[in-house]
Amino acid sequence: MKATAKAHTNIALIKYWGKRNEELILPTNNSLSITLDGFHTITNVSFKEELTNDVFYLNDSFVQGEQADRVTKFLNLVRDLAGRYVFAEVKSVNAVPTAAGFASSASGFAALAAASTKAVGLNLSDEQLSRLTRQGSGSACRSIYGGFAEWQKGEKEDGSDSFAVPVVAKDHWDIRVAAVVLSSKMKKVSSRAGMKRTVETSPFFKGWVESIPADLQSIKEGILERDFTKVGEIAEANCLKMHATTLGASPPFTYWLDTTVTVMQTVKQLRDSGIPAYFTIDAGPNVKVLYLPEYEVQIKQALQSIQGVADVKLSRVGQGITYLGDEDFA
Amino acid sequence: MKATAKAHTNIALIKYWGKRNEELILPTNNSLSITLDGFHTITNVSFKEELTNDVFYLNDSFVQGEQADRVTKFLNLVRDLAGRYVFAEVKSVNAVPTAAGFASSASGFAALAAASTKAVGLNLSDEQLSRLTRQGSGSACRSIYGGFAEWQKGEKEDGSDSFAVPVVAKDHWDIRVAAVVLSSKMKKVSSRAGMKRTVETSPFFKGWVESIPADLQSIKEGILERDFTKVGEIAEANCLKMHATTLGASPPFTYWLDTTVTVMQTVKQLRDSGIPAYFTIDAGPNVKVLYLPEYEVQIKQALQSIQGVADVKLSRVGQGITYLGDEDFA
Repeated sequence: MKATAKAHTNIALIKYWGKRNEELILPTNNSLSITLDGFHTITNVSFKEELTNDVFYLNDSFVQGEQADRVTKFLNLVRDLAGRYVFAEVKSVNAVPTAAGFASSASGFAALAAASTKAVGLNLSDEQLSRLTRQGSGSACRSIYGGFAEWQKGEKEDGSDSFAVPVVAKDHWDIRVAAVVLSSKMKKVSSRAGMKRTVETSPFFKGWVESIPADLQSIKEGILERDFTKVGEIAEANCLKMHATTLGASPPFTYWLDTTVTVMQTVKQLRDSGIPAYFTIDAGPNVKVLYLPEYEVQIKQALQSIQGVADVKLSRVGQGITYLGDEDFA
Repeated sequence: MKATAKAHTNIALIKYWGKRNEELILPTNNSLSITLDGFHTITNVSFKEELTNDVFYLNDSFVQGEQADRVTKFLNLVRDLAGRYVFAEVKSVNAVPTAAGFASSASGFAALAAASTKAVGLNLSDEQLSRLTRQGSGSACRSIYGGFAEWQKGEKEDGSDSFAVPVVAKDHWDIRVAAVVLSSKMKKVSSRAGMKRTVETSPFFKGWVESIPADLQSIKEGILERDFTKVGEIAEANCLKMHATTLGASPPFTYWLDTTVTVMQTVKQLRDSGIPAYFTIDAGPNVKVLYLPEYEVQIKQALQSIQGVADVKLSRVGQGITYLGDEDFA
């Protein structure tokens, strides 16, 4: 009745931006991501008959409130699926610095889903696990897989066809991501609230959704062809479109700080000087830069030297879910 | 056969962004502007039988090439309208610092239209003058009027119903504009080219056009009610929508620099501290800030203290076309 799993976070190259069903977490568009080696969550779940409620520890601290409620809500889905109504002790260790602007909920819910379903005795396929994980945190459903993954939005109202699948390639592609952490923080609109306001009020939301299929087709071609320029150009353009939609919301908002634009300019300058690099930005001010291993030194140097940049964290392409022995969970 | 006219530039609160006819300069949407006292062009036109071509002096310098060709092309329209085929000497003095990021073409073509039509003996109504001016430079058609003016896009293919009209108010409204000039320049995409690329490739262009009528109705209500908050909020949101459309273009582009975003943040902070102020941005990195006279000191101080701001130029609401005696043209 116990199990331990490790999951990595992921960064979307085609963004998840807009829900068609808030409760089931069903998106308005397909999205596509790279799983990242550098950032992960390890979670141990033990179902125990003697417990009278779920208990949740994050990085050795007992957690209550909204965060713990989301865990229990997710465990309820697992218990329903297994038909076993036992409370659990959940211990998570997060190696995703929140300051890096990564959604730790992606690796967090993927690890929780994997550990809890294994602990309760369910033996789910990747698709089943991804579909379940989606209901904890949307973008987490892509972290089931290593490499590139596509979250298929699905058409059905019950969400049964909304899960991620791997974007299969014949061999490993060593592309890398630099997470550029800005000194100044200012995330006033959460991604959940921002997405909702955009769907409901932005005159650009329709254009965003309509533009996705072409982006997806091209980027998948680029991934299969190992065409870094193609992948980078589409990822960058897709991120700019996502951020454009927020400028049309009512009231309008942006996740960008001035330094966000400085980093974007620097990436453009790197390209102009012959170093291939492309940026992508999630619902926050930090920037992630895609690059190729042979330019790692120049990329890191250029990004670190920007005024207002606190840190640059480098990552390779990561693996999907792995199950660990309990001895691995110290 | 000679005349001198003065025209002021204007700043759009509802942006002109998109042409439906490049040759006749017919827009895809109505726009609305304030004419500004602080920036003007004075132009003297003399039609002279002895000339064998048009000659054009700008700020005492003889001008040839593209800029002179645009003047001749415009004078051809005037000659056709008058049925008099005589070449002209045109002398313009521009008090619109190009560095301020104002379209000097707005005051330039308005002054040229007024002086040339008077010199050739035409006696045009404001509407006729505005329609003619539009064919020199689109936004110039609004500079015929002082205060607020609306450029009605019109429906006809020949452009006969596309001209500006004043937004009539019962008395003067003393609202002001600070032009924030940035140190670093980087306008890589001209407004003409940017507009065209956006119309042709941005998935957001349709949403932009569709959102205009509601913005126009609200801002006109705000102007009539002297509701600064209403006018400011709509102007700021409209400008953000215009800039959002460029992020969706293919390839994507932006007119913003990092300091552009810093100025936007500062304006937001001013509002948060109780000082009403709103920004608008044209097809370039500089920012214009709308404010009320009682806050002039604080506004100027806050904007000037931003790192990367080279100058802050203040302006009041300006007048429409005025005709000067030749003695006024030194």
